[in-house]
Amino acid sequence: MAVGNGETGELYPVQGITMAAVSAGIKTPGRLDCVIFDLGENATVAGVFTTNAFRAAPVTLCKNHLAKNTPRYFVINTGNANAGTGQAGLDNALKTCLEIAELKNLPVSTVLPFSTGVIGEQLPVQKINDVIPDALDSLAADTWLDCATGIMTTDTRPKAASRQVEIEGQTVTITGIAKGAGMIKPNMATMLGYIFTDADISQDDLQAMLGQAVDKSFNRITVDSDTSTNDCCMLTATGKSGVQVNQDSGEFIEALESVFLSLAQGLVRDAEGATKFVAITAEAGESKEECLKLAYTVAESPLVKTALFASDPNWGRILAAVGRAGIENLDISKVAIYLDDVCIVEHGSVASSYKEEAGQQVMDKEEITIRISLDRGDQAETVWTSDLSHDYVTINAEYRT
Amino acid sequence: MAVGNGETGELYPVQGITMAAVSAGIKTPGRLDCVIFDLGENATVAGVFTTNAFRAAPVTLCKNHLAKNTPRYFVINTGNANAGTGQAGLDNALKTCLEIAELKNLPVSTVLPFSTGVIGEQLPVQKINDVIPDALDSLAADTWLDCATGIMTTDTRPKAASRQVEIEGQTVTITGIAKGAGMIKPNMATMLGYIFTDADISQDDLQAMLGQAVDKSFNRITVDSDTSTNDCCMLTATGKSGVQVNQDSGEFIEALESVFLSLAQGLVRDAEGATKFVAITAEAGESKEECLKLAYTVAESPLVKTALFASDPNWGRILAAVGRAGIENLDISKVAIYLDDVCIVEHGSVASSYKEEAGQQVMDKEEITIRISLDRGDQAETVWTSDLSHDYVTINAEYRT
Repeated sequence: MAVGNGETGELYPVQGITMAAVSAGIKTPGRLDCVIFDLGENATVAGVFTTNAFRAAPVTLCKNHLAKNTPRYFVINTGNANAGTGQAGLDNALKTCLEIAELKNLPVSTVLPFSTGVIGEQLPVQKINDVIPDALDSLAADTWLDCATGIMTTDTRPKAASRQVEIEGQTVTITGIAKGAGMIKPNMATMLGYIFTDADISQDDLQAMLGQAVDKSFNRITVDSDTSTNDCCMLTATGKSGVQVNQDSGEFIEALESVFLSLAQGLVRDAEGATKFVAITAEAGESKEECLKLAYTVAESPLVKTALFASDPNWGRILAAVGRAGIENLDISKVAIYLDDVCIVEHGSVASSYKEEAGQQVMDKEEITIRISLDRGDQAETVWTSDLSHDYVTINAEYRT
Repeated sequence: MAVGNGETGELYPVQGITMAAVSAGIKTPGRLDCVIFDLGENATVAGVFTTNAFRAAPVTLCKNHLAKNTPRYFVINTGNANAGTGQAGLDNALKTCLEIAELKNLPVSTVLPFSTGVIGEQLPVQKINDVIPDALDSLAADTWLDCATGIMTTDTRPKAASRQVEIEGQTVTITGIAKGAGMIKPNMATMLGYIFTDADISQDDLQAMLGQAVDKSFNRITVDSDTSTNDCCMLTATGKSGVQVNQDSGEFIEALESVFLSLAQGLVRDAEGATKFVAITAEAGESKEECLKLAYTVAESPLVKTALFASDPNWGRILAAVGRAGIENLDISKVAIYLDDVCIVEHGSVASSYKEEAGQQVMDKEEITIRISLDRGDQAETVWTSDLSHDYVTINAEYRT
């Protein structure tokens, strides 16, 4: 299941970027499961990585390589996360990088590895290396959807987004892909996200832009409150458009953040078993921190999520989640809760104007906003989440079978 | 579903305590849904209550009455939580107390009200008051199971436990009942728990004993990380055995805490949709706090819980949960994880001795221990939880229908 039609709109090529998706038969014979991006020469690359203490082998290696050299290739596999695999896992991740480096006569540190899939099994490195030459031979500028498909795990559809902006009479393009449907509570990044632009951006500006964009998008979504061992989000600027942008380039930043938000929301719309796409806004709070804490508590409540699945306007569960969020000195007589524009709770109990039919009408929709006002400040935060359905349980109970 | 056979063993009368369970037809005609306890004269009563900011009307009233007077009666209903109901809810809770107080010619503050069930609907107070005279006429010393049944919501079976100890040649009895199967992460108490003893205990000692017993039992369980608006746990000492005990009475404390733990574990064994009963122990930690944080993070991970439901030794999910628990300066090379006695992770990756068959044998069991050693201190904590099954989703999606 998934919410909405998942259409990506047109996906523009990014000057300087080519890519290929091939099948290495890692988990399922015949499916696209190995993706290579060629970033061209002298691209600037910024990354953010999982905060999970058990970071996967490719994440460790990726950070090392990124610190050492200018990246030229990304190599990404699905079907195996190469996490919890110790020294053998690090060795295996290195071997996939070496395969590309040797074929292209480049230092191994110019290749960044990424993996997603089952945790705790050793990477079938030979299967991947066997298809790398084919992948390198078939690099093209426009196979975004194949690549987005080639990094999927339990995703039911590829996630991609693209924007173009005119800057000083020149067209600048931003296109990205992402994957992730479960184990989603990014705490630096999403599962895997790759966003590319042909703008010319300094390393410092790029890292700052990435941090800010991630913070407004991938760091505002939760499916099941589980943070992956393999989260990575990479932003690459090739400079090939010849247009220089920096942190003050408002129009560019807007387009960039729009790509990030579209990808992040795409993950939630296609979350494991999702039948609802739900925005949770906490507003009129004293601080961003308390708004986020509140929004996440509601977003992660299994009881709120099962009520959403049932399209049941059981607002008592939202109220109970608000009450246990640990907001200091919460004056419940000031709390108001809305389902879309329907006020369900005011002054801490059911709104006098509330009619169950009105609540039901909102809950019957596929996309819903739950808004909680604390009436004690001017801060607000929104997070996005999905419901908790039978399919979530089925998908995760049967993942390894 | 539920884990184990749910047998309670013999439930001994507590001198001075009588009780009755009747049917008021609050939600389902004919089922026991209204319970009254008569504590006799001069009982000592201690209580702990939900930390949810949206505490229910009966909780507010209960705390007020407890501060004012020596309690004589508990009146408990299921089917309606009287939470999120504003001033009308407070008025309704008071009316049930008044009914008993008037019939018995006592001040209203000697009656403590408790409710559990759907949040956000007004209490059908007349239905309850109509059956109160019958209940008062049928008070008896030994209908523990009826009363445990009469406070159930989505529970599939009554929870009760009883112990007797000999102190100075006299028999002292402790018997208690509890309910709760979902919205369970007590943060002061369980959903509803009533424990009685005929020992003679001062108010201060009783409150201290209750706090300590709750902290080792109801405050160590989680089903779905949701804290109810209605949690209450009451400990009553009638003094009728003539045996004085205090905080230094080791044998009594041991028996008391054993009753609490049995009830708390009973809730988890009968958790909504439970097919597994799982103890999560974090050990060799620097502090109790970090051990609890770690144990709760693993216990509440939807991915760990669905793997448990599937009897899948997918230890990578346990490792991922440990990694995101936010333990400061965690050295993963020191982390070891065990399923019962099978070492699955050592030095931060899969144990060299680990065989999937051994992990599978443990996961196939109904009762499982997950043990995580941090190898950096001498503190330990255990929490108990259940798995996340299709039935959990079904029960909570259909709760109001």
